[in-house]
Amino acid sequence: MGHVILITGGCRSGKSAFAQQLAEETGDQLLFLATSPPLDREMQERIRLHREERAHRGWQTVEEQQCPARIIRESPPGATILLDCLTLWINNMLYLAEKEGKLLDEKTVRGKAEELLLTCRERPGTVIMVTNEVGLGIVPENRLARRYRDLVGRCNQCIGREADEVYLVSCGVPLKLKG
Amino acid sequence: MGHVILITGGCRSGKSAFAQQLAEETGDQLLFLATSPPLDREMQERIRLHREERAHRGWQTVEEQQCPARIIRESPPGATILLDCLTLWINNMLYLAEKEGKLLDEKTVRGKAEELLLTCRERPGTVIMVTNEVGLGIVPENRLARRYRDLVGRCNQCIGREADEVYLVSCGVPLKLKG
Amino acid sequence: MGHVILITGGCRSGKSAFAQQLAEETGDQLLFLATSPPLDREMQERIRLHREERAHRGWQTVEEQQCPARIIRESPPGATILLDCLTLWINNMLYLAEKEGKLLDEKTVRGKAEELLLTCRERPGTVIMVTNEVGLGIVPENRLARRYRDLVGRCNQCIGREADEVYLVSCGVPLKLKG
Repeated sequence: MGHVILITGGCRSGKSAFAQQLAEETGDQLLFLATSPPLDREMQERIRLHREERAHRGWQTVEEQQCPARIIRESPPGATILLDCLTLWINNMLYLAEKEGKLLDEKTVRGKAEELLLTCRERPGTVIMVTNEVGLGIVPENRLARRYRDLVGRCNQCIGREADEVYLVSCGVPLKLKG
Repeated sequence: MGHVILITGGCRSGKSAFAQQLAEETGDQLLFLATSPPLDREMQERIRLHREERAHRGWQTVEEQQCPARIIRESPPGATILLDCLTLWINNMLYLAEKEGKLLDEKTVRGKAEELLLTCRERPGTVIMVTNEVGLGIVPENRLARRYRDLVGRCNQCIGREADEVYLVSCGVPLKLKG
Repeated sequence: MGHVILITGGCRSGKSAFAQQLAEETGDQLLFLATSPPLDREMQERIRLHREERAHRGWQTVEEQQCPARIIRESPPGATILLDCLTLWINNMLYLAEKEGKLLDEKTVRGKAEELLLTCRERPGTVIMVTNEVGLGIVPENRLARRYRDLVGRCNQCIGREADEVYLVSCGVPLKLKG
């Protein structure tokens, strides 16, 4: 029922701007679902400014670091949701797991991604997800970075295979991969 | 005569799954040519499981770390060969060269790639090669990592220019670049 | 008035070779605008060889590390200019700023990119710019590398959005993203 769009690209590739533009063309009721933890004061200030700037264009912002599916489930049917971004969500889950001495493996992430997709399907309306490509550089020496890279790739694959539309953004230019 | 397909993408982008699917659609006799060295017990176990799982789908697996061209030359004409992956092959050659105090330069790698291509051309049947994009991140500080990145890029260029088909896989979605 | 082409890709992806080929198909008067600082003797020698090799194919080479717009402004109208590459230009500006204890931020880089574009527009002829994707790996631990990555991404976005044509090169194969 719900429509799922995945947007990928590198750091500062213009993927978030394209995602917002796509959302604004899609719907009237706009929900920005932020997964970003406000790490330091500079980051907090930046997030606040982005939030205000979006509010002027009709967006409501909700923050959820661990369970974006819950927010999607509880959001008004028909509203266009922009989940920005999957990589920070994976990062938050990995951080929590490490803190609790647990292992976040690819199977668990696949389960989480499938739950997220199912939630989007059960709810009328469009969900646009932003992610990052993080696996196109040299294998990182840091063990946790390697795990993160694997988990993000796994999540992107799961979502990308099921999504109705997939875009790759490079140099501010979106390329439709699917849909 | 032989048909060459190159599949590139990032870590966990779904490129190997796509390559296997393509091979299974292409031929009846399937040969998996693994270049991966079994580095530790965990890796060995993972490789064994992958191998068994492929065997159920009709694949035969051969391992060759230094000279995949030899295996291709000696394999049954018409069999569909999946070489997974070029990056590990480069890695193996670089490792051996360093151990012997020799320099593996771009010219040598270009020669090796051309030999590989020629072997594929001389033999009837399809060879699918999987590779990685490793040059889309920040320049690595480690000297050997920089060399590896240059060599992989050079090899990918040589193969990609001559290949009949080239695909880029992102988020589990293949994009045809050529063919 | 002027025509702008942006070519992106990873390290050793074949982007410079494609850019030169495109330029040679475009015009008779060919100007290579190099932003690369000759860092060491090996690099100097490599640059000299490239320069000589291009000269045989009719190219004139000019080096400018900080202000490529100035060279473009002063070059003969109608000449085809190949600016190789934007990433080294950003690197040079960042290096100078750090040395002078100044901050090179995204706003400044956007201004510089816009100035460059305006210069290309005001002059009859084609300008081909080569850049790198550097934001598709793991977030670098090094602060300066993170800043560099952000600045390159920002510059690429600005140029890519306004360019008449944008290409992504992977494994020696160009993919048209726009134009």
